Amino acid sequence: MPETTRRADRLTGNRYGNRPTMKDVAARAGVGLKTVSRVVNGEPGVTPDTERRVQEAIDALGFRRNDSARVLRKGRTASIGLILEDLADPFYGPLSRAVEEVARAHGALLINGSSAEDPEREQELALALCARRVDGLVVIPAGDDHRYLEPEIRAGVATVFVDRPAGRIDADVVLSDNYGGARDGVAHLIAHGHRRIGFIGDMPRIHTAAERLRGYRAAMEDAGISVAERWMSLGATDPERVRRAAEEMLAGPDPVTAVFAGNNRVTVTVVRVLAERARRAALVGFDDFELADLLQPGVTVVAQDSSALGRTAAERLFRQLDGTLVAPERIELPTRLITRGSGELPPTD
Amino acid sequence: MPETTRRADRLTGNRYGNRPTMKDVAARAGVGLKTVSRVVNGEPGVTPDTERRVQEAIDALGFRRNDSARVLRKGRTASIGLILEDLADPFYGPLSRAVEEVARAHGALLINGSSAEDPEREQELALALCARRVDGLVVIPAGDDHRYLEPEIRAGVATVFVDRPAGRIDADVVLSDNYGGARDGVAHLIAHGHRRIGFIGDMPRIHTAAERLRGYRAAMEDAGISVAERWMSLGATDPERVRRAAEEMLAGPDPVTAVFAGNNRVTVTVVRVLAERARRAALVGFDDFELADLLQPGVTVVAQDSSALGRTAAERLFRQLDGTLVAPERIELPTRLITRGSGELPPTD
Repeated sequence: MPETTRRADRLTGNRYGNRPTMKDVAARAGVGLKTVSRVVNGEPGVTPDTERRVQEAIDALGFRRNDSARVLRKGRTASIGLILEDLADPFYGPLSRAVEEVARAHGALLINGSSAEDPEREQELALALCARRVDGLVVIPAGDDHRYLEPEIRAGVATVFVDRPAGRIDADVVLSDNYGGARDGVAHLIAHGHRRIGFIGDMPRIHTAAERLRGYRAAMEDAGISVAERWMSLGATDPERVRRAAEEMLAGPDPVTAVFAGNNRVTVTVVRVLAERARRAALVGFDDFELADLLQPGVTVVAQDSSALGRTAAERLFRQLDGTLVAPERIELPTRLITRGSGELPPTD
Repeated sequence: MPETTRRADRLTGNRYGNRPTMKDVAARAGVGLKTVSRVVNGEPGVTPDTERRVQEAIDALGFRRNDSARVLRKGRTASIGLILEDLADPFYGPLSRAVEEVARAHGALLINGSSAEDPEREQELALALCARRVDGLVVIPAGDDHRYLEPEIRAGVATVFVDRPAGRIDADVVLSDNYGGARDGVAHLIAHGHRRIGFIGDMPRIHTAAERLRGYRAAMEDAGISVAERWMSLGATDPERVRRAAEEMLAGPDPVTAVFAGNNRVTVTVVRVLAERARRAALVGFDDFELADLLQPGVTVVAQDSSALGRTAAERLFRQLDGTLVAPERIELPTRLITRGSGELPPTD
């Protein structure tokens, strides 16, 4: 009943409080756990009077029998939710699997959903998972306002944001050093003689895209290179859009001699565009990807440790649930430049 | 309340029955939907007598207010579950996204979980999702006995199995033609002059691995080639195991001159092993994968349409929920041979 839900949330106002359990009901009704279980599960062997007392305790505490807990034979839901951005982006595979491995180590199930980069979808999904009684949420946010989660957090749902920060709430965040990584990657191209360097990235409203662009600008500024508008293209990462952007930069009177690709989706398309051309432009991509080393030339990348992102976020989530964390933190993981050939090509003019 | 749950299950015994809605309650109590909503949500403005009648209808029908439905402002859960095998296997990316697109088109959320190839985990997850009131489940099964789902199916949970068949229950199944695809791929190698052809596949208990091995044997038999035990290696698809298997087949007095890789995880490792060798063995892999065309030589594959698998399964799921399906079916989707060079290399001796 909603009535009791609202009461339950009031009762569990502490940051990492739990919802009332059968134990609480038994204590309040002054009966044994087995008796509560009989009433809750509609089993025989309880006097009408006892049943009434237990029911009153259930209503007063706002206890709700948790079906999944019954399935899992555990006191709590023993499940956490993960909200991804795109189910088909390989970057999220290792991240998801790392979250799942930590969840499993804690005896919890992982339930995923994808926002498909839609803030409304993210909220709908996050609240639906909370309504389904996950203990906590690991969120790769699509939106930039997460105040909608405050009631859930007050009700005891642990929350960690990963890959991108939370918006307008104070929460645990685990990120890669997007700015520093992009800056290093672009500086690497400059060190190999490039001055006209293009940047093709994701939509600017996305934190990682904005940070990587900032890193690109910083590296160019460090080298005293003034950036032409036409060298920068931010937008959707679908192959058509990225191909157009790359071909425009590589054409004209002074084409770029190198491209910095803002993420793995962009990189794979740029690799295709460059493979079709006689004069090979240099390429450094943000994110490592499978078989990057077997292409010719191998693709130089700024690698994020996506497993570490997932593992770190999930471990913080369970530390929240254990009550061993108090204040939210922002954790930034380093990136690593992996040179394989494409980023070491000299300028073609 | 569990009492009412059981009643609900009895009431919705038909194959694809739905749980009772507020509409049903309103009809039975002879009141308006708004009145039922007031009672269910504990809002004021309902006379004790009307409230009693609504409560009786709720108990009689076994109606349960669904929290997520409240979140989604919908009459039913409006969510379906997808149980994957491995969150990090790129084969499942397009499949998951296709299921999600169909779910979205039906105004439903998709919730995923991974069995990590563990039958117990699959059951735990499937039941946990059912306990969380998903309307239906799309399952890529890890196990071969799904009788544990029968009570859920009777209670109205729609169920479709994809990529691998259901075990010991009669259910909708959407598969690729694993046998025919492997047979075509191996016949292609034979047509290019190979006779000593190796097969490296996943664990034999996995349906797809067994079917693809059967296709390999059939193609060899069609060509009158007797298969040596040492040409076949089935087991885990981790790089170490696959590398050992490939190196053993490619060594010795009469090494295989071609390898048929049983899935994309196997293929990427075999590509690495072959890239290290001077005399290039031919390769055909089951499953297409990103950048297969940009490797040198390009990798010839037997492509499954993983989006179509997901889309077909999800569409059947919603047809079950619409009540427009009666008998479970087994649907087999064709595979497609894509020649790119690696499968057309002649024998190296």
